[in-house]
Amino acid sequence: MHIGLVGLGKMGNNMRTRLRANGIEVTGFDRNPDVTDVATISDLVAALPAPRTVWVMVPAGAITDSVVEELNGLLEAGDLIIDGGNSRFTDDFKHAELLSAKGIDYIDAGVSGGVWGVDNGYGLMVGGSKEQVERVMPVFDALRPEGPRDEGFVHVGEVGAGHYAKMVHNGIEYALMQAYAEGFELLDKREDIIKDVPGTFKAWQRGTVVRSWLLELLVRALEEDPDFEQIEGYVEDSGEGRWTIEEAIANAVPVPTISASIFARFVSRQEDSPAMKAVAALRNQFGGHAVKKADD
Amino acid sequence: MHIGLVGLGKMGNNMRTRLRANGIEVTGFDRNPDVTDVATISDLVAALPAPRTVWVMVPAGAITDSVVEELNGLLEAGDLIIDGGNSRFTDDFKHAELLSAKGIDYIDAGVSGGVWGVDNGYGLMVGGSKEQVERVMPVFDALRPEGPRDEGFVHVGEVGAGHYAKMVHNGIEYALMQAYAEGFELLDKREDIIKDVPGTFKAWQRGTVVRSWLLELLVRALEEDPDFEQIEGYVEDSGEGRWTIEEAIANAVPVPTISASIFARFVSRQEDSPAMKAVAALRNQFGGHAVKKADD
Amino acid sequence: MHIGLVGLGKMGNNMRTRLRANGIEVTGFDRNPDVTDVATISDLVAALPAPRTVWVMVPAGAITDSVVEELNGLLEAGDLIIDGGNSRFTDDFKHAELLSAKGIDYIDAGVSGGVWGVDNGYGLMVGGSKEQVERVMPVFDALRPEGPRDEGFVHVGEVGAGHYAKMVHNGIEYALMQAYAEGFELLDKREDIIKDVPGTFKAWQRGTVVRSWLLELLVRALEEDPDFEQIEGYVEDSGEGRWTIEEAIANAVPVPTISASIFARFVSRQEDSPAMKAVAALRNQFGGHAVKKADD
Amino acid sequence: MHIGLVGLGKMGNNMRTRLRANGIEVTGFDRNPDVTDVATISDLVAALPAPRTVWVMVPAGAITDSVVEELNGLLEAGDLIIDGGNSRFTDDFKHAELLSAKGIDYIDAGVSGGVWGVDNGYGLMVGGSKEQVERVMPVFDALRPEGPRDEGFVHVGEVGAGHYAKMVHNGIEYALMQAYAEGFELLDKREDIIKDVPGTFKAWQRGTVVRSWLLELLVRALEEDPDFEQIEGYVEDSGEGRWTIEEAIANAVPVPTISASIFARFVSRQEDSPAMKAVAALRNQFGGHAVKKADD
Repeated sequence: MHIGLVGLGKMGNNMRTRLRANGIEVTGFDRNPDVTDVATISDLVAALPAPRTVWVMVPAGAITDSVVEELNGLLEAGDLIIDGGNSRFTDDFKHAELLSAKGIDYIDAGVSGGVWGVDNGYGLMVGGSKEQVERVMPVFDALRPEGPRDEGFVHVGEVGAGHYAKMVHNGIEYALMQAYAEGFELLDKREDIIKDVPGTFKAWQRGTVVRSWLLELLVRALEEDPDFEQIEGYVEDSGEGRWTIEEAIANAVPVPTISASIFARFVSRQEDSPAMKAVAALRNQFGGHAVKKADD
Repeated sequence: MHIGLVGLGKMGNNMRTRLRANGIEVTGFDRNPDVTDVATISDLVAALPAPRTVWVMVPAGAITDSVVEELNGLLEAGDLIIDGGNSRFTDDFKHAELLSAKGIDYIDAGVSGGVWGVDNGYGLMVGGSKEQVERVMPVFDALRPEGPRDEGFVHVGEVGAGHYAKMVHNGIEYALMQAYAEGFELLDKREDIIKDVPGTFKAWQRGTVVRSWLLELLVRALEEDPDFEQIEGYVEDSGEGRWTIEEAIANAVPVPTISASIFARFVSRQEDSPAMKAVAALRNQFGGHAVKKADD
Repeated sequence: MHIGLVGLGKMGNNMRTRLRANGIEVTGFDRNPDVTDVATISDLVAALPAPRTVWVMVPAGAITDSVVEELNGLLEAGDLIIDGGNSRFTDDFKHAELLSAKGIDYIDAGVSGGVWGVDNGYGLMVGGSKEQVERVMPVFDALRPEGPRDEGFVHVGEVGAGHYAKMVHNGIEYALMQAYAEGFELLDKREDIIKDVPGTFKAWQRGTVVRSWLLELLVRALEEDPDFEQIEGYVEDSGEGRWTIEEAIANAVPVPTISASIFARFVSRQEDSPAMKAVAALRNQFGGHAVKKADD
Repeated sequence: MHIGLVGLGKMGNNMRTRLRANGIEVTGFDRNPDVTDVATISDLVAALPAPRTVWVMVPAGAITDSVVEELNGLLEAGDLIIDGGNSRFTDDFKHAELLSAKGIDYIDAGVSGGVWGVDNGYGLMVGGSKEQVERVMPVFDALRPEGPRDEGFVHVGEVGAGHYAKMVHNGIEYALMQAYAEGFELLDKREDIIKDVPGTFKAWQRGTVVRSWLLELLVRALEEDPDFEQIEGYVEDSGEGRWTIEEAIANAVPVPTISASIFARFVSRQEDSPAMKAVAALRNQFGGHAVKKADD
């Protein structure tokens, strides 16, 4: 099978490597001339056998929109676009409708696994029609981890379902990370009691209820920097965590841990908190409690 | 009526002023010679008519314990100690039991109102026996705000009930402050839309659902420093907020807003967050996301 | 001054009453023939002197959209629409743009005060141009509470700012309510200690830090039904609370208490919690902990 | 090696099986005659070679206290008690001090793994002196999972450290479970989009960031009951989750996700929520919003 792959950043490049290693022919395009196989998206389309399959792996939002629009101009009825980026599921509805006017098919694929996917395989959550998903199953099989197909791949539903599932996956991921992080702080704080924080996490890898891949990564991170001295407690967040909250709100689903993990990231990026200034000011007003002056 | 008052800090001193202004004779003791009326607690006890009433207004915990113990040695059967400090209600049980051996009575009084109490009067929540509470009602009437007694004073129950109610009062207070503070940050963040943050809070003082005394204090604070430029978002917390969470846990009462307000204070005092270092390290491990180096 | 008022539900009807009582002539329209002054919106427009002012007080979203569109067809350059409903501030941008094509002016007004506003006056947060706001100041003065104008009215910014401020107001309101409610449950749970829950809230009305209008309402509610025996713990939420979270997410503002108060409402409306079924199932899987069967 | 084991409930019984399977001689005692090896604890002590090792595996708190006290009366200097139950770490301090008067040694061991431990091995977190821990290492090696020792066993620190680590482990566990549960509800709610909720969780088992042992258990649970129709959303909590919050409060560690997961369990067990009754009552007071009557 021969597919096109638009977007050869950290993820796309690794995916091309894995696809090729597993027998899929890939023509890749990226604006970065060091990694691209062809000069233009037009060249990429020209290089593919019909019906064409193009996997899009670029940043969600405006960039994915523009790539889909460009491909819409270049592809023909019966061709297929797979959006493997972190698009919002509502964008899938929009893209599928746009493409359907010309008879171009569309699949959305949530892809998990990060930089480890090239070796471990990628967890895949896919939305689209049964026929299209079956048609490109060799691509999914090349990307997914070894083992039973249904432990690393799922056809979740129609268009949008793959990214919806990936969004929820990332919401869960945020809360899982925060859970371990709170535990880390609890252990770290009591150095009078806990004499081996990294060793404690390491020992949780077998037999315990909390064992997981994230735990293994935390063990690795603590091996590299046992006190996290080289790292700042500053954490970005991506669209998917935020969308998870928005969907929760829209559907009246209580998500206290997922939201707490997002808010913790927001706070982590603030030099000072306007809200806590207000609380400090209030305490000072009613109790005469001293405030820390900004220039202290 | 003539009572003793041990502890003439910010609160105690103001209370002496209000008591005297409202016709209660007060002999005060404090280790600070500038404010004390007598040289020792022993002198204070000697100055009072039997049966004696001594109001204790010192920091909760070890200091209140030691004052109660010292008074236990000096007072007689039929005398009364009122603990008006911010003691944990479980300490009241301990104090009452200690004193009961000698027939000394005990009342716990939660006192709210901060530095404004000297003029506005203090909100009072009282625990103890009906007889004792009635006996010292003139003291409570002198301290409480003008208006109907039951709008500024309550006999909540037996010993411990006053401080339990005060503890809950303070737990609520924490969450109320946090609520306004979150609203402040939401308004403050959108300076493209909200052209008058102080004016918005000011306008909420009449007619709105959120009007309150804390709102009035926030308006005052914003008048003094409209952008909170002089203030750091660093907020202490006292025992009562923490005890509220502990009681909630002990009684299986969900307190998401009260706990959130405490945690926000904890975070406000951290130079960097160990938990968020762990999250940053995890993201770096799986996604190759750049971390902020501690020396950036 | 003579204005039109579209929407004579609970709020609109009360506002007509207050406006008339304070010297504003009002022609009201409602689909309910029992309360309307005119048969159609067209009649309402015809009854007003130019330049016309029409206050719209109908449910946010589709209904407000359709009323604004109908008025857009009926009004002329120089006329003014004030949307006093609970519209999302982003709808204001849309409405103002629509109307501007014909030279019709637009003001958004957040209105707080509920059923009490007819007597107490309404807290008003207004967005729009300085000229237009000044032009209809008599209307705002008629609606707002007595006292200094800036304690019950604020011109927050350009179009949209009024509803943005109202949205934040309601977000705060949610968290304030939840704070008192958590305190109520903490007091209520310890009937062994707290012998007078309604009396405790009543006594917080003067002198304390937590005194507020919501507290007064809680006192009233407890007087009517001291144990809330007649009431179910089932709470709806409106758009404004949800939008507050969405704005917080969009602007990276941590809002742990406001979100907790929304989630508590979501949970309150669930017969059973899918999430807690999942937790129960998990506990059963690893620990052999018994689960409650659905038909127990 | 030959040890005594007091407590042959679900956990203790399984542990005896695993110990014996791995070459440790075990004399077990339980009040249940069907499972016990000896009639009394005294018989158990008599059956052991000196220096004796007795593993206590009974419910934390009063029962563990009484077993430790009984053993204190029966054992001699140089003997060792290992508390493998879910005791609070502060109880370890108490037990160690009691036993030290007679020269009896003490180790606390946090044990994770639930009903799966008999086959998979138990994750072990141990507190005590280096000498004692080394002396009974064969016991720990028999219990822990296969693989490198430091991936299933850790000597965390002095007495108390094992249970402290286990407490934090369980706090994390609570939040992890809640995270997956929130994700489950988000998927479950959108049956219009997600056509295969169990399949989605199943597919997360390989390659994804959220893969874990708890996820595998959730997959199992969904295979048994895909819609959780047989299960009620009612979840108990044990001491360790609560103690985690208390320790967090005592050490000023923010734990928003762990606390949220506990509060969700509290709510899950309420027939109706007093707090939400209060919120409903408040909404009714200011807005005239209808409340659900308790008998609706």
